[in-house]
Parts: sequence; C-alpha cells; structure tokens
Amino acid sequence: MTVPAFERLKNRLAEVDDLTKAASLLFWDQRVMMPPAGSEARAESMATVSRLAQERFVAPDIEQLLEDLRSLEESSDYDSFEASLIRATRRDFEKASRVPPELVGEMRRASTLALSAWGPAKEESNFEAMRPHLETNLGLRHRYVECFDPADETYDVLLDDYEPHMKTAEVREIFDELKEELVPLVKEIGDAGEIADSFMTGEFDPGRQRDLGLEIVRRFGYTDDEWRLDQTSHPFMSSPGAGDIRLTSNFRPNDLTSLFATMHEFGHGVYEWGVDPALARTPLGSGVSLGLHESQSRTWENLVGRSRSFWRFFYPRLQETFAEQLGSIEEEAFYRAVNKVQPSLIRIDADEVTYNMHIILRFELEQELIEDRLALRDLPAAWNARMDDYLGVAVPDDARGVLQDMHWAGGSFGYFPTCALGNVISVQIWERAREELGDLDERFERGEFGELRDWLTEHLYRMGRKFTPQETIERVTGSRIDAKPYVRYLREKLAPQPA
Amino acid sequence: MTVPAFERLKNRLAEVDDLTKAASLLFWDQRVMMPPAGSEARAESMATVSRLAQERFVAPDIEQLLEDLRSLEESSDYDSFEASLIRATRRDFEKASRVPPELVGEMRRASTLALSAWGPAKEESNFEAMRPHLETNLGLRHRYVECFDPADETYDVLLDDYEPHMKTAEVREIFDELKEELVPLVKEIGDAGEIADSFMTGEFDPGRQRDLGLEIVRRFGYTDDEWRLDQTSHPFMSSPGAGDIRLTSNFRPNDLTSLFATMHEFGHGVYEWGVDPALARTPLGSGVSLGLHESQSRTWENLVGRSRSFWRFFYPRLQETFAEQLGSIEEEAFYRAVNKVQPSLIRIDADEVTYNMHIILRFELEQELIEDRLALRDLPAAWNARMDDYLGVAVPDDARGVLQDMHWAGGSFGYFPTCALGNVISVQIWERAREELGDLDERFERGEFGELRDWLTEHLYRMGRKFTPQETIERVTGSRIDAKPYVRYLREKLAPQPA
Repeated sequence: MTVPAFERLKNRLAEVDDLTKAASLLFWDQRVMMPPAGSEARAESMATVSRLAQERFVAPDIEQLLEDLRSLEESSDYDSFEASLIRATRRDFEKASRVPPELVGEMRRASTLALSAWGPAKEESNFEAMRPHLETNLGLRHRYVECFDPADETYDVLLDDYEPHMKTAEVREIFDELKEELVPLVKEIGDAGEIADSFMTGEFDPGRQRDLGLEIVRRFGYTDDEWRLDQTSHPFMSSPGAGDIRLTSNFRPNDLTSLFATMHEFGHGVYEWGVDPALARTPLGSGVSLGLHESQSRTWENLVGRSRSFWRFFYPRLQETFAEQLGSIEEEAFYRAVNKVQPSLIRIDADEVTYNMHIILRFELEQELIEDRLALRDLPAAWNARMDDYLGVAVPDDARGVLQDMHWAGGSFGYFPTCALGNVISVQIWERAREELGDLDERFERGEFGELRDWLTEHLYRMGRKFTPQETIERVTGSRIDAKPYVRYLREKLAPQPA
Repeated sequence: MTVPAFERLKNRLAEVDDLTKAASLLFWDQRVMMPPAGSEARAESMATVSRLAQERFVAPDIEQLLEDLRSLEESSDYDSFEASLIRATRRDFEKASRVPPELVGEMRRASTLALSAWGPAKEESNFEAMRPHLETNLGLRHRYVECFDPADETYDVLLDDYEPHMKTAEVREIFDELKEELVPLVKEIGDAGEIADSFMTGEFDPGRQRDLGLEIVRRFGYTDDEWRLDQTSHPFMSSPGAGDIRLTSNFRPNDLTSLFATMHEFGHGVYEWGVDPALARTPLGSGVSLGLHESQSRTWENLVGRSRSFWRFFYPRLQETFAEQLGSIEEEAFYRAVNKVQPSLIRIDADEVTYNMHIILRFELEQELIEDRLALRDLPAAWNARMDDYLGVAVPDDARGVLQDMHWAGGSFGYFPTCALGNVISVQIWERAREELGDLDERFERGEFGELRDWLTEHLYRMGRKFTPQETIERVTGSRIDAKPYVRYLREKLAPQPA
C-alpha cells in the first residue's frame, strides 16, 4: 500500500519541524542554562541542525509533492487543514528554496557566536567587542537578501521573514501616523507635570518578584505541567515542542519591571499554547507573524497588566508582599506610576506611548544599515543622536544604548517594527473581544482572566499559521491593520484629563 | 581545489557529532528541565535527530571515503590522529551500517517515552505502568540484535555497544571471581558486628548539600565556566558539547548520599573534560567505553571520596556545616560510617563491596530477558528472589526494587555490567597512578587533587576513543583487565582487622 501524497508531505514536514524544535531548544539552553565555555560547540550544533532542517525541507521530493497536491489543494475548502497546509508550505518552500542551506547554517553559527559575545559586551558597554560580530551578521544578511528578486526596498526582504507579505512602505505609513499622533501626546503629558513614582525603585527581592509573577501568570493559564519560567538578562519566550512553553524574565533587585516582562512573555507563550494541537509538527503549528505575536504579548502586558481593574485585583497582594515599600502607597498612585509616560533609555522598560519611538528609531537605523547608508562604526553615534532627537534622552553609555537589545546580535534585522505593529493590532483585537465579551474589567477585578484567554484562543490562537497575517487580523477583527484604535486607546488612557 | 579525502571525512563526521550532541542536549533537558507535558513532542524530536545522525553517518560517501583512506591509514602511525580516526570510524560504520535508521529512531522514541513514564511509575511503585514500555524497549532490542551476525551469546551484541570487543563470557568469568571473593568478605564483615552510623540519617538541608558538593568538585577541577550541577532523582552526567559538562545529583533531605553521587558524576564529567580538544567533533572525542567511564566515576567517588585522607581534609567543613548532626561525631567514626558494608536495597547507595552484587543481579536478569528465559511479567518476582538470594535483603516494593534505576526505561540493556567492570579497572589504574605519583594521601589531606586529575588526564582521558578499551587499559596500566587488584583493595580497606 502506498502512503497518500498528503500523508507523505505531512511526515516530511514533521521531520523538518522536529529539527526546528531541536534548534529552538539549543537556543533556549544557550541563553538560559549553558556554561559559557560551551558556546563554540553550541554554534556548530546550531549551524548543523539549522542547515539540515533547511536541506530536508528544500528537497526535490517535497517540491514534487507540492506539485502533486495542487488538485487536492484546489478541491479543498480554503479553510481546511489540507488546503492551508499545502498553501503555507508552498510559500515557505518558494522562499526557502532560494537560500542555500550552507548560508542558513552560517547565519545560525554566526548569530550563536554573536549572542555569546553580546552578554559580556553589554556588561562592559563595549560596542567595539560586538562590532565584528555585527559586521558578520550584517554581511550574511546582505547575502541573504541577494537570494531574492529585487524588492521595492531592500528592507522588504528582511521584514517578510517576520511579518509575511508586509511592505516597508506600509510600515512607514503606519509609523508616520504614530509619530504624528504620539509626539504631541508625549508633549501634552509632559506639560501636565510629573507623576510621583519614587516608590517604584527600591529594594524588591527578586525571588519574591518571581513568585508574584508566577502567581499572576497562573491566573492567566500557566501550569507547571506545560510551562516553565526562568531568569535571563533579556526576557524571551521559546516553545521547543507542543506542551512545552518556556518564559524567561529578568528579576532585578531594584525595580518591579519583571512583573510586566513576565506578563509580556506569557502573552507570547499563550499564543503558542493555544494553537490547535492538530497543527503540531506541521508548519502551521505556531503563531503566524511576529506582529500578531507581539499583539498578544502587549495585550497581556499592557491591556491586561497595566489596567486599573487588574491592579484592583492584584495590588493588595503586591502591597502585602512589599509592605515596607508600598504599604503607604494608594492603589491609584500605583496605577498611575505603572502607566507613567516619560521618555527613557531602555525599550523594554518604556511606557506604552514612548515605546513606539524606540521601535521607530530601530526601524530607521536598520534600513540605513542594510542599505549601506550607515556604517556599523557610526551606529552608536547615530543611535545616540536619534535618542536625543525623538525622546530628548541623553544616552550615557552603549550598554544602555545600542547594546541594550540582543536582536541584532541574534541576527534579527527586520524584527523590531513588528513590536510597534503588535501594539496597533493588539487594540484592534482587544476592542473586538470587549464587544463580544462585555465588561472585562469586572472579571479582572475578581482575578478572572479565563474568558479572555479562551476567547483569544478560539478566535486567534487556534488558527496558527493557516492564514496570512492580514487574513488572520481580518478574521479576528473584521478589518485591516489600522492605527486609529490604538492611538484612541492611548489618548483615552493616558492623555492628561482636563481638571 | 578539491578538499582532501581525510578533511572530507572529518567534516562529515563533525556533522554527525553535532547531531549526536543535539540529541544529548534533548536528553539532558528532558531529564532536568522539560515540563512534563513536553514528553511526546520531545520523543519525536529525539527520534528524528537520532535517526538523521544515523542516516548521515551510514551514507555511501562515508563508506567510499573509508575505502579511499585505507592507504593513509596503513601508512600512518597506529597512534596518529589520522589512523585512529579512520580505524575507529571503520568499526563504528561496520556496526551502524547493519542497523536501519528507522530502527534507531524508533528505539529513541520509545525510550524517550519510557523515560517520561518511569518517573511517575517509580513514584507510585507501579511496575505494571512501566511494563508495556519495557516490552517495547525489549522488542526493539530483539530487532536490533537480529541486525547482527549470530554471536556466541545474544547478550554479546548488547554488551558491545557499551564495552566494545568484550564478550559476555569474559564478564561472567570476572564476575564469578568477584562473587567467590566478595560473598565471604560480606559475611566476615557482617560477623564482625555492626558499625554505628545512625548519625548518617537525619535532616541535612539539600541546598547546603549542593553547596558542599560544589565545594568538593571545585577542588577536583569543576569551574562555572565549563560545568553545571543540577538536581535529578537519578544522577547522571551529560556533555552536550566541548566545554560543556553537566552533572546532576539527588540532593535528598534525609541523608548525605548526594555528596558521593556528585563526586561520582564528577568522575564521568572529568573524563569527558580531559579528552584532547583536538578530538572534539570527531567520533574519538569522548570516553572509550562505559567500563572505563565507570572506572573514573568510581575513582572519584570511592578511591578519592571514601578515603581517609579525603575526609581528613573535608570532614571539618562538613562538621561545621551540619554541626547539630555531626558536631559530636569523631572523624574516624564518620569515615567508618561512609565505608560501612551492609547489604541494602538501592544500588547507587550501596557500599563498595555489595555494589557489585547489585550489578551481577542485573547482569543475569538482563541475559535472561534478552534470551527470553524470563518474561517481563515475572521480572519483579525474579528481582526480589535474587535480592534475597545474593544480599539477604527483602524488597518492600518495586520502587525500591526493579523500578529503582532508569536504565531499562532508557533502553540500556547491556550497560550494567560495565559498572562493576569499572570498579575492577579503577583500582588497576589507581595503583599505577600511586606508583608514579607517590603518596597521594598527603596531598588529599591538604585538599590537593590537581596532580591526580592531571595524571589521569595525561595518561587516560586525553586518548578519548583512539584505542580500544582493552588497548586503553593496557596503555595506562601495562596489563589486561584483572580483578585481583580490586579484590585486594577491598580486603585491605574493608575486611575486619584482627583485634
């Protein structure tokens, strides 16, 4: 008996997915567990596993199967598993077949080594130690771009890996709209006078922050059976297999930012967690784009985690835990402090408004780098100038400037804009959820988040990569990506109220 | 320019090694970090990575390269890197090419699932929950055995994977000699009256045990740059890459056995650590056999870690840490307690003498299982009967009986005898080291272990898999494997002294 073509395709894709998952464990382990001296060997095994994943995918038999399955695709419902799998795989194949597996392996080896160098370089605020690695990463991205037909803009090719089908010009348009709305909003807020928040810095035991973070995400849906939470200097989420969702957060002794990072990474995690189990071990079995992903991390971090109703529920627990620091601080004062809008140095600690300016800055610099309009040697100066320009902030050192994020070390050029797109999308989805679920605040005040999670699972997470990002957004919200709801939300929540 | 054949072989083998290392990380992570619900996905990625490692190794181009390199091998010095690599690879290839990659993948998938089931089954002392997994594992071993030419004994095929070139009959001969010597020794010791050791059970904070274990192995050579130490219910060592040595130990609140487990696993780790870095990413880059490996774990656990001179050095630190429990206990009384010979239930907690009987029991049962002389259904009863027979110990439940070890769940049939062989070999090497280094006790008393480690590295660890196990032993000790030094050592150290 011969195995039907569709089954054969599924089996071959499952194998590729297994390798991808192995690579993602190699990555997680490198960041969280690996002794430092293991980095060279790790770079080699990363390179080999990634190259093989590519080789096994871009293979003649898969090309043939995709050909043979055209009629099945066309005769199946657009929404069906079969049509979706063949359609998504065809696009993935079309892209992947342009890139030599050796280049994939080289990109992975270089970024693994660069990531190992990034930690110490950041600690010593030594951009020059990082520069050769960034040169290599960027050089490899140039070679990667050359694998594709010329695009409208070079940056399009990079962006497409994180936000499929999105063009740089579209992002620019959205970002221009954000800039236009947010720059005056920041000014208005600034003019209204400073919000007191000195109680937000002090001594906050990291172990207790971890316990509180766990207490929160357990309410959201975290279980010990399927999740874990670890410490890293740069928080991230990784899922090296179905039923295995890993969050990291940075539990720092002098502030409470880890709580928001933990909720943020939970948002990434719950998106992966909610994908239909039937899509596991296929290319459909994960979130559809970084923009959609970020929409969910920002939903749980900001729309939930910085809401008044959330803190109505959780502030007593926080106060109880850090009685000395917060015992005398009113809930409303705390709420205002965690929503304080103020230009600052570090992207991941930024408030909801200025956060977008951090992204726009990176988006612009990335384009200049990939188009050779900016040399890496001049990057720190360009960074610092633009921080002054957009946020009026003086950068004291590269650790708190150009070295703060791990993404460029990790070779992720084209990733950053998805963070601000995520903000925009998050509010579109949020408004839809509230329309269907009614008053969420009442439930949050009681510590109930299950209905929101279930709604998001049902309407968004389940779909995985069955549709394009734009189709996915339209299915959830009924409309295309649109900055207006987000800007309105920010104004309503954060603009100074007339006295 | 064409790449020389030897370089091509090295590159291909490096790729296979990268996959093997990735598989070893997947394994380590499963045991130490993975959330339980990740086990099915993990079984799949384990299976795929292992199968691909096999496929990429048993490939026509490698076969051809081995053919083409015959003249290089013959014209090179036997000890040279080139000749050793070709020789070892030829033997590995000859074995691996008999086994279909699908079977390798299946064995790995089944054992990964079985290992996930083993933890809960042991906790609930539920052999029946484990039995279907063991049936599968054993069935796959039968298929594995059938891949090879008929051997003198079926068990030879399994044994060869852990102790290359060794025959079951040779092991039996050594074990018969051990039995003959050790059974009367156990009786003599028993007749001499019981050694007081009630202070060895009590409350010993696990965190402090971990700190003490680290303090010890740091003296031996552990550094944070290259090593890590974690908690697992079954201690093991894994090295998922050069410069990355991972130990686990079981820090239990009611006894001090974790200290010995930590030293034991350090012995495995330091063997991997000491392999010549030039052999990394080749099939020569690890310890040569499980017997040699176990010789080193037992060296650091017993020959060092249960010596009088070691405790002369370390007992004050232990006493200081656990003042309440050990403050009034003399060093000599403690030394005698950690060397108390008494039949007991758990292999890894057993004393140096009775340990071997635990192994002989497993060695015999494994042969009966693989030769279909014993059904898995009857295994617990057979286990318990033999525990009574060899050690006079009544097994209260399967958790402390047949389910205590993870090896059969992990599919490792044929592994256990190497543990007792390791004991035998350890003393042969130890005697050689003492001949060359002179009085080690004096250095141990001062907390100095570097010379021993360096000698072992220079004379044993460096070689990796360049030579066969027997050649390796002969190079270190000048003689073949021989039980006499071991028996003599046990008698001298542990037999009751005439009053």
